[in-house]
Amino acid sequence: MVRLDSSSPNFAADFARLLTLKREIAEDVDEAVRGIIGEVVARGDAALVDFTRRFDRLGPDFSADALRITEAEIDAAVASCPDEAMTALRLAAERIEAFHAQQKPQDHRATDALGVTAGWRWTALESVGLYVPGGTASYPSSVLMNGVPARVAGVPRIVMVVPTPDNILNPLVLAAARLAGVHEVYRVGGAQAVAALAYGTASIAPVAKIVGPGNAWVAAAKRRVFGQVGIDMIAGPSEVLILADGHANPDWIAADLLAQAEHDTAAQSVLITDSAELAEAVEAAVERALTTLPRAEIARASWRDYGAIIRVRDFDEAVPLVDRIAPEHLEIETQDAEALSGRIRNAGAIFLGSHTPEAIGDYVGGPNHVLPTARSARFSSGLGVLDFMKRTTILACTPESLRALGPAAITLGRSEGLEGHARSVAIRLNL
Amino acid sequence: MVRLDSSSPNFAADFARLLTLKREIAEDVDEAVRGIIGEVVARGDAALVDFTRRFDRLGPDFSADALRITEAEIDAAVASCPDEAMTALRLAAERIEAFHAQQKPQDHRATDALGVTAGWRWTALESVGLYVPGGTASYPSSVLMNGVPARVAGVPRIVMVVPTPDNILNPLVLAAARLAGVHEVYRVGGAQAVAALAYGTASIAPVAKIVGPGNAWVAAAKRRVFGQVGIDMIAGPSEVLILADGHANPDWIAADLLAQAEHDTAAQSVLITDSAELAEAVEAAVERALTTLPRAEIARASWRDYGAIIRVRDFDEAVPLVDRIAPEHLEIETQDAEALSGRIRNAGAIFLGSHTPEAIGDYVGGPNHVLPTARSARFSSGLGVLDFMKRTTILACTPESLRALGPAAITLGRSEGLEGHARSVAIRLNL
Repeated sequence: MVRLDSSSPNFAADFARLLTLKREIAEDVDEAVRGIIGEVVARGDAALVDFTRRFDRLGPDFSADALRITEAEIDAAVASCPDEAMTALRLAAERIEAFHAQQKPQDHRATDALGVTAGWRWTALESVGLYVPGGTASYPSSVLMNGVPARVAGVPRIVMVVPTPDNILNPLVLAAARLAGVHEVYRVGGAQAVAALAYGTASIAPVAKIVGPGNAWVAAAKRRVFGQVGIDMIAGPSEVLILADGHANPDWIAADLLAQAEHDTAAQSVLITDSAELAEAVEAAVERALTTLPRAEIARASWRDYGAIIRVRDFDEAVPLVDRIAPEHLEIETQDAEALSGRIRNAGAIFLGSHTPEAIGDYVGGPNHVLPTARSARFSSGLGVLDFMKRTTILACTPESLRALGPAAITLGRSEGLEGHARSVAIRLNL
Repeated sequence: MVRLDSSSPNFAADFARLLTLKREIAEDVDEAVRGIIGEVVARGDAALVDFTRRFDRLGPDFSADALRITEAEIDAAVASCPDEAMTALRLAAERIEAFHAQQKPQDHRATDALGVTAGWRWTALESVGLYVPGGTASYPSSVLMNGVPARVAGVPRIVMVVPTPDNILNPLVLAAARLAGVHEVYRVGGAQAVAALAYGTASIAPVAKIVGPGNAWVAAAKRRVFGQVGIDMIAGPSEVLILADGHANPDWIAADLLAQAEHDTAAQSVLITDSAELAEAVEAAVERALTTLPRAEIARASWRDYGAIIRVRDFDEAVPLVDRIAPEHLEIETQDAEALSGRIRNAGAIFLGSHTPEAIGDYVGGPNHVLPTARSARFSSGLGVLDFMKRTTILACTPESLRALGPAAITLGRSEGLEGHARSVAIRLNL
């Protein structure tokens, strides 16, 4: 953990160093991934079966018939989930759906004074593939956050792929798929699953876009199939930035810093405060809380290597720092949280006030928890309904409005050396 | 040009072949581009000057001081433009602005029955870089289409880069920059310009996102800096698909097919019709029009290699074909154009009726002419105001609403093995 102070002469350099900390070691799997995709394109299901037997250790009996997880298997998984978890998952799904329903965009059309009608129409993607990691990173909440917005958008075919290493699959993941409205589920993961979604096999029809988190192999495969299909952003390690003043509860702040840090040794938790007392108290509270945290080893490494406490003279000074960090998650626990939030340009999601810990947003708040990491909140947004729709613009001229606009189009076409463009207008005007 | 007929037994295979025609040869410049970016990161302006001297042949006197195109130079360029072209460009800018102003998104916030406030806020990107090609592909209309939406979004810093090979620059490009509200213009292009925009040099401060078309070097550089900054889509060769019935004018249709084909030998023009007579008449009209078209050589190659006329029994049959092609531009010149357009899911932009040639949309219609190519209209939209903004979600719980929602979040956190998440909620509820 580093302690920075905005009044220190080294602050600018120290802050710049914090911004450029490399938290990810890029695993070079690109060549291997290229080979896997090539195999799936060439051999389809047979390649999927081979890779799944090998990587997920599913044994020689595994065949293409078993790729699909049946409705009966999903029923059985749902029945096996504890009631308390199912109730919580249902609440989460309802709240995520209610929030995202408010994001559905409006079609628009208007006719101007010349008689030109222009506007746009939003349509849902025809199909979407949702990648869900297996093993310990298999989060039912993430299935809801990726799947529910697709259903709200009206995507008629939502496909989920999830690896089942050693035949193990969290039943809550299947329950979440059911709640999210997923139409097809396949037990396949890695680059081979991404290739199947992009190019299709006999068992898995291709989709128009692939979303969802994954390891380096999945990320490399998504980059490689981009263009053939759409992809969402490539997520990096998670981050939280907390703005807190002397009124904040140091134990609560410490708990929030560690909730982020426990994700991953590459996660990052940062506190910016104008209070020296709070800074010290939080530092001590983190150490206390670490003594009893189950994932203390991970959280401790994250806090040690990437954690920071930044002292500022006042929050005017903090605003440009926040915008440069462009945090995935921003908690504001100050007296004037609402006003301060309005001054921030770059953040994926803002959590206002001391009763809004970021973890509420991870599960049941309603807004999406798939958010831009690694400073990409400077130029991108969290996942939402618009990511599962696209806009077609519409233009309609009458003979009269073409007569009014045509000469300008002809002039510009000719000025760009595109006489054919000019002629396609001129021929309709007998020019 | 290929002729397909939906009633032929080979149609499915022929149509599939048309869909997978490779129209682009990927130039392998990736290694060279990596080197250029590395040089710009390491040596800044000095590298920009070296590359610009070499690639744009600007001579040994060219220095970093001359990178910026001054306001006086822009004034002089504007003054040198023909009045007719300036008037047309001004009309285009006004119409593009009026259309895009309608795309500005609304902020939203709502408080639910539990007392949880959730919503989102849109903010403009802090800065945007607009790449403009030099030489023959230097289109003022493209400057407007990329720049005006950024201004409408409220981007406070819009930077343009444009190479000036042999010191030649189309003055209309600078005039368009002025009309679009570009704040800074630099005479630099290629991968070196993209690197400067992404990483910054002493003369050019970095931006948050880079948009605009470019050659293989520019495209490779944009792919490589993605993540450091945002990028727009990588545009492929342009395409038009025309749906026309027996009432359409074959000479008008031919003119539209050739307006597309004249762009590039890799452009694609396709007609789908239910009329054998129209199919034949258009084929003859294309040959006639080619005899007088200045860019006939390019248009002829495009039409020969990638053009198609598809006969269908009726337009019910055409709808799924259009959705599979997912054309960048779709013209509908049928009696029931409006109703037919409502049945199409995948298209970048639709031009309705026989008085709306696509070229009107290239210049003065109002909607953007930067549109998804190469079947990517299945999953993406044309450029618009949203591409220059991002959404920050907002969540605020009261103590009471946290008490209502907290237990479910705690349950889900524990079910995912994230005790730290659960504790950050529980500590606020004394649980």
